[in-house]
Parts: sequence; structure tokens; C-alpha cells
Amino acid sequence: MSRKLPASSPLKDPAYKAAVVDVLGLIAYSELTAFGRMSVDAKLAPTLSDVVALSRMAVDELAHYGLLEARLIELDVDPAEAMAPFVEAVEKFQEQTRPADFLEGLVKVYVGDGIAADFFGEIAGLLDRETAAIVREAISAVGVESYIVDTVRAAIEADFSVQGRLALWARRLVGEALSQAQRVAVDRSQLSSLIASSGDGMDLTEVTRMLARITEGHTARVAALGLGANS
Amino acid sequence: MSRKLPASSPLKDPAYKAAVVDVLGLIAYSELTAFGRMSVDAKLAPTLSDVVALSRMAVDELAHYGLLEARLIELDVDPAEAMAPFVEAVEKFQEQTRPADFLEGLVKVYVGDGIAADFFGEIAGLLDRETAAIVREAISAVGVESYIVDTVRAAIEADFSVQGRLALWARRLVGEALSQAQRVAVDRSQLSSLIASSGDGMDLTEVTRMLARITEGHTARVAALGLGANS
Repeated sequence: MSRKLPASSPLKDPAYKAAVVDVLGLIAYSELTAFGRMSVDAKLAPTLSDVVALSRMAVDELAHYGLLEARLIELDVDPAEAMAPFVEAVEKFQEQTRPADFLEGLVKVYVGDGIAADFFGEIAGLLDRETAAIVREAISAVGVESYIVDTVRAAIEADFSVQGRLALWARRLVGEALSQAQRVAVDRSQLSSLIASSGDGMDLTEVTRMLARITEGHTARVAALGLGANS
Repeated sequence: MSRKLPASSPLKDPAYKAAVVDVLGLIAYSELTAFGRMSVDAKLAPTLSDVVALSRMAVDELAHYGLLEARLIELDVDPAEAMAPFVEAVEKFQEQTRPADFLEGLVKVYVGDGIAADFFGEIAGLLDRETAAIVREAISAVGVESYIVDTVRAAIEADFSVQGRLALWARRLVGEALSQAQRVAVDRSQLSSLIASSGDGMDLTEVTRMLARITEGHTARVAALGLGANS
């Protein structure tokens, strides 16, 4: 059921609402995909307790999806319709970055979801308070981080050749993510203008700063995994 | 934390407890696998709302797994150890029955999980009340049944050649399930003696009746899907 929006709600502005629906749809489909991917990758885990732990994290991703779905319904938008414009880009990314083994899957979750969460977190800063809170909760970590760091570092310690392969893999993930992000930016002008607008959005300096922050976060994650230039 | 068992608990009998641990471990691994399989199959669903609905049912399977895990921990048993003896048989079954498309996946859930649930339901009748209640809750339906029946029937209506193919598939599922069940029965004598024992278990007549009931349930499910001999 749709709630009455207060007269002062920024969501009364159709252009802003279209951008919000795009943000929610994009993150929702990313979470839904994360659920599917993590539950598949879970099967590759080395022990049954790992399988269970990773499966439960997949379930948390679906719960995150539920938050975004609820917000879309509240805004009188069909969640499937909101997600539809992003299916191709997300699936293309998944297809181009199919992990060859369990370790590549873990790096993909850590590096890929990390950069996506940072990006969506920046977007949240441009949204009305209520939507922003939902986005922030939906992109919050599912508790898999320290498990991934420990597992990847242990694998590198056991066999150093793993390091170069996974470092290359992390770079490829970012390259593919950027190329799909570019595609989405071109296709969805309301989303791009939310980010780079002369009004309440960011100007070019702000966008540059945002990209610098995201790059910084990525570099820190790669280093945490022991895949940095100085590792 | 392990609870103190009452002095009168049948779980004080090591042979009975070993059988219970086997039952819980087997069902737990089946549910964990069902989670993984349903979340993969969900991706093949024709619409995004179907993907979401099936993903949520997968999550329910993992919740079922949680019930069994909790009972095992209560009995001071490591869930991973309890499941380990059944990994090979369950995986072999999965491997031999990989669905070629979404419809085969649905029939597998309905027919395969149906026959397994009937079998485990029969076993529950041989267990102490507390364990039996947990088993019954863990095998309860996740609400996917009417969706599967409707989807399979609609597909047959749209293209009758689907009927023969899926009927054959249902028969193959049962054949593979039986051959893995046989393997488990040979490997795990405590489980077999729970079923066919001269004491509190079933005698040969009871076992025959049980198999007849399970066959009956299977025939009804195949008919519900429109895959029966008289469809």
C-alpha cells in the first residue's frame, strides 16, 4: 500500500522520483543477484560449516533486497519494473566475471561488492533522508569480510603464485564494473543527472572527489587481501 | 549448549541416538542442498517476481536446515560431522539429476522433495516425540507446490510434447533417488535398523505398507502435475 507523501516531500518532483526509483531498482537487482551468486559460491566452500556460513550470508543479501522492494512498493512502483532496466548490465558483469574457483569468488564478493557499496553510499548522500537510510541499510556488510580476508591471505601464504593471479582478477573485476557502470550512466540519464547536476547534485569537482574516495576504498580493500602493489 | 537429557530419554540409548543423528544429518544435508539448488534454479525463472518468490522459498529451506542443526547441537553433535556420511549420496543424486531447464527443475523439487518428505515423515513416526516434531517441521512444505503445479500444467497445455519428456524425467528422478537410498541403507546400518527392527521399529509387513504409502503419494503428485499415465 502506498503511503501519502507529505506535500514537502522531494519525491513529489517526478525527475527526482525517477532517479530514486532507478537507484532502488539498481541496488535491488544487485542484491538479488548477490543472493544467487553467494548461494552458488557457498557450495564451493571447503568445509560444510563454511557452506552454511556463506549460505546464511546469502540469505542476508535477500533480506537487504526486501528493504528496497518494500520502499519501491511504498512509492507505488512495481519492483520488477524498477529492476528491469539494470538486468542486462548486471548480468553482463556477472557473465564477464565468472569466478574460476572459490578464491576468485571470495575476491569478487569483497572487491566487487565493496566498490558497489561505496558507490551506492555516495549516492545515498544525495537522497532524501528516508530513502538514504534504507539504501545505507541495504548496502551494509553481511559479515563475510573478515572470513574472506583470512581465507585469501591464508591461501596466498600457502602458495604465493595465487597472489599474482588474484591481483589480476581484482583488476579485471574493476575494469568490468566500470564498463557496465558507464553503460548504465549513458542509458539512464535521470540517474546520471542525480549525480552530476548543477543544482543539488555534485559539480565536476565533487564527482572527481567522489571517484577519488571510491578508488581509495578499493585500494585499501585490495591491500587488506594482500593483493596490493606493496604486498 | 547441550541440555541435560531426562533419565528416561530414549536418546540415552547409544544405538537409538546414533540412528537419530543419522536421520537429522541426512535431512539437514538434504535441506542445505535444497537451498543451494533452489536458489540456482530461481535464476532460471521466467520473470523477476518468480525469481524473488523462488529465492524466498530457498531461504525457507535454509531455515529448515537451522532447526535440524539446532537439534544436533542440543544433542552435542557437530552438524558438519552428522551430515558428512550423506554428502556423497546426496551429491551423486544431484549430479545424476541436473535439470536441463526450468520446468525440469520444478518437477525435481515437487517430485523429489515430495518423496523425500514422505519418507522422512514415515521415519518421524519412529522417533521420540521431540525429535519427531522437529523433523516434521523441517520437512514441511515451503509453499512452492501450487506454483509448480500451475506452471507445469500451463507448459503442457502450451506444448503437449513437454508432457512425455517431463513424465520420463519424473521416473528417472525416482530411480536415481532409490538407488542412492539403497546405498545409504547399506552404509548406515543404524539407520536401517531403526526402520526395520524386530523391536520398536517396523517389521517386514510394516515396511511394505510404508513403501506402498510412499508410492501412493508419488503417484498422486505425478498426477497433479498432469504427468500421470491417465493424463
